[in-house]
Amino acid sequence: MAELRKITPVILSGGSGTRLWPMSRAGKPKQLLSLTADETMLQLTAQRTGDPLRFVAPIVVANARHVDIIGEQLAQVGIGEATLILEPAARNTAAAIALAALHAAPDALLLVMPSDHVIADVDSFRRAIDAAAAVVEQGWLATFGITPDAPEIGYGYICTGEEIAAGVCRVERFVEKPDRATAEGYIAAGCYVWNGGIFLFRADTYLRELEAHAPAIAAAARKAMAAARIEGVHIYPDAKAFAASPDESIDYAVMEKAERVAVAPVEMGWSDVGSWDALHALAIKDADGNAHHGEIISIDTSGCLIRSDGPLVAAVGVKDLIIIATKDAVLVLPRGSSQEVKRAVEALKRSGHITLDRAS
Amino acid sequence: MAELRKITPVILSGGSGTRLWPMSRAGKPKQLLSLTADETMLQLTAQRTGDPLRFVAPIVVANARHVDIIGEQLAQVGIGEATLILEPAARNTAAAIALAALHAAPDALLLVMPSDHVIADVDSFRRAIDAAAAVVEQGWLATFGITPDAPEIGYGYICTGEEIAAGVCRVERFVEKPDRATAEGYIAAGCYVWNGGIFLFRADTYLRELEAHAPAIAAAARKAMAAARIEGVHIYPDAKAFAASPDESIDYAVMEKAERVAVAPVEMGWSDVGSWDALHALAIKDADGNAHHGEIISIDTSGCLIRSDGPLVAAVGVKDLIIIATKDAVLVLPRGSSQEVKRAVEALKRSGHITLDRAS
Repeated sequence: MAELRKITPVILSGGSGTRLWPMSRAGKPKQLLSLTADETMLQLTAQRTGDPLRFVAPIVVANARHVDIIGEQLAQVGIGEATLILEPAARNTAAAIALAALHAAPDALLLVMPSDHVIADVDSFRRAIDAAAAVVEQGWLATFGITPDAPEIGYGYICTGEEIAAGVCRVERFVEKPDRATAEGYIAAGCYVWNGGIFLFRADTYLRELEAHAPAIAAAARKAMAAARIEGVHIYPDAKAFAASPDESIDYAVMEKAERVAVAPVEMGWSDVGSWDALHALAIKDADGNAHHGEIISIDTSGCLIRSDGPLVAAVGVKDLIIIATKDAVLVLPRGSSQEVKRAVEALKRSGHITLDRAS
Repeated sequence: MAELRKITPVILSGGSGTRLWPMSRAGKPKQLLSLTADETMLQLTAQRTGDPLRFVAPIVVANARHVDIIGEQLAQVGIGEATLILEPAARNTAAAIALAALHAAPDALLLVMPSDHVIADVDSFRRAIDAAAAVVEQGWLATFGITPDAPEIGYGYICTGEEIAAGVCRVERFVEKPDRATAEGYIAAGCYVWNGGIFLFRADTYLRELEAHAPAIAAAARKAMAAARIEGVHIYPDAKAFAASPDESIDYAVMEKAERVAVAPVEMGWSDVGSWDALHALAIKDADGNAHHGEIISIDTSGCLIRSDGPLVAAVGVKDLIIIATKDAVLVLPRGSSQEVKRAVEALKRSGHITLDRAS
C-alpha cells in the first residue's frame, strides 16, 4: 500500500434534531450535548480524528448560530485550528459537504462525519478508513457500512457487491429504511450493512459527481463560497446564493446516482444515538439497569434512564421509564417507546411551546 | 336548643409536611398551596368559617416565617380581621391551641381546624358543629369523627360510646393508627370513626384540662403569651418561654386523658389530602382518569396525576403515574405508592438536599 496521505475531517454539525428533546433544542442540538461521556458528541467526533500524523485540522460545517459554542467546545479539547463554515440556513448534507469540498484543496481526502454519532472502536474505524483510502485515491466515492446487529428499521441499508480492494466492496445499491420483515430479510441475506452516513472521497471527486448529478446544489454552493465573508477561521457563505440550493442529502443527490461508489464494511461499536432508548442501551448501567445522569435520587427503581441538567429528580418504585428533566421541561415515557418523543414535540410545536430550525 | 353563640375559628397552620414534596416545602407548606381549587388549602379553611352570622374572625396559629404569605392569602379571600399568632418554633398542636385559647375570651367557643384539610360538604360540617356546641357549653371537649369509607391505616380512630346529645356521643376511647386487619375490624364493628383533628370547646375548658393533664405545656404557653410582642393583629409569643413547652399533640396531651370528651360523627366529604394519591382521588379527572395541573402535554396517558408549577411536562404512553414538577425538583412514582414519598424525602435530607422545620 502506498504511503497514506493525511485526511481532512469534515464534521457536519448542521442538525437540530428533536429525537432527544427536551435536552436537544434548536439552540443546543444533540451534537453539542454531553450524552455518552463528559465530552460532547462534537468533541468526541473531533477527538476521533485528532491524530496529527493521520489527520489535518477539521473543517466543521455548522449552523451560524452555534459559532461561539462550537468554537468553545473545540478549544476545550485542544482542536484549535478547525475551520468553521457557518451555514446561513440549513440545506441538508449534499450542499453542506459541497461547501467544505470547495474550501479544501481539490486533491484533499475528505472524511465526512456526522457530529453526533458514537464510535466505540476507533481502531477498527481507522483501519476501515485506510482500506477505503486506497480506492478513493482512484476516484471512488466511499461510504462506511456498519455491520448490523439487529434488523433495525430506522436506518438505510447498503447492499454490498464484489470486493474491489482489501476490505472494500462496490456498492450494489442503497435501500431506504425498510419495514421489519424486509430488514429481517437483509440480516438473513448477510450482505447488507447499515448506511452510517460517514464518507471518504477526494474533494474534486465529490464536486465532479455533484456537478453531474445535482448541478443546482453545486452551483449554489460555488456561488455562496465565492461570495463568502471570511473572519479568521470563520467562513460565512453568502446567504442569498446558498438559499438557492436544493435541500437534498448526499445519499440522494450523489451516492445513489454515481457510478463508482464503494463501501468499507466495518464493525466499530457505532450508534447514531438516535433516541433515548439508544442512549440507555449505550450507557453504563448500575446493578438495577439504571443509567442516571445529573442530580438523581432513585429508590426501588430499575431499568430506567434518568437524566437532568437542572432540577433534582426523585424516582421511587418505577421501572423501565425514561425521565428527562431540563430547567424548563420534563419528559416521561416508557423505555422502548422513545420514538414517541416526536409526537410530544409535534404537539408542542402546534401549541407554540417550541420552535425548531430543522427536524432530525 | 338555646341560641347559638358565635364561634371563634382557630386555624392551625404550623405544619410543614413532606408528604406532598416537592410542592410542599418548609417555605411553602401544603396549607399554603392551591391543591384542590384555585384557592389555597388555608383560604378554603378560612372561607369555610367565613359566615359572619355564625363565626367571628379567625385566630390563625402559624410559623412566624409565613407571616407575610398568610396575611396575603387571607386578604385575598376577604378575611382581613384575622389574628395571627406567630409561633417562634413548632411545639405541636397542644401548645399551639393553648396560645389561641389564652388569646381568646375564657368563654369563647373555639373551633380548632387544621389548615390543610378538605371538607366537601360544609353544610354537614355546620350541623355537626351546632350539635357539638350544645355539649361544649356544658364543659365538654368535642371532636369530630369522620364516618370512614375504607379501612384506612393512616388515621387514628375513635370508638364512639353512648349518645349524650342529639348527634353527639361520649368518646369511648381513642386508638392509634391501626394495621390493616385491625382497621377492617373497626369498619366491621360500625361504631368507629376517624379522628379528623377538628375540635370544638370553650377556651377555659381546654385550658383547665391542659393544666390538669399537661401542666408544662400550659405554663409555657401562658408565659409565652404574657411576654408576647404584639404588632397590630400579629402576636409573637416569647420565644424562650415557648421553647420550654413539650412537643405533644392535643390528642395525646389532652383528649385521650380528659374525662368529658365527646365526638360528633359526621359524613362531610373530608380528606386530609395526605398524599398525592389522595389528591388524585379528590381531583376532577379527564376521560382517561388523568388529573393534570399546570403546563402539561399528555399523549396516550391514563390514570395519572401530573402537576407542575414550573416546567412544561410531557408524558407519553404512561399509565398510573404521579409526576410532580417544580422549578428545582421532579418526583415520579407509581400511583398507589405515594406514601413512599417520605423515603425520597428522607434520602434527600440525608444528602443535605432539603431541610424541613418539622415532619408532617
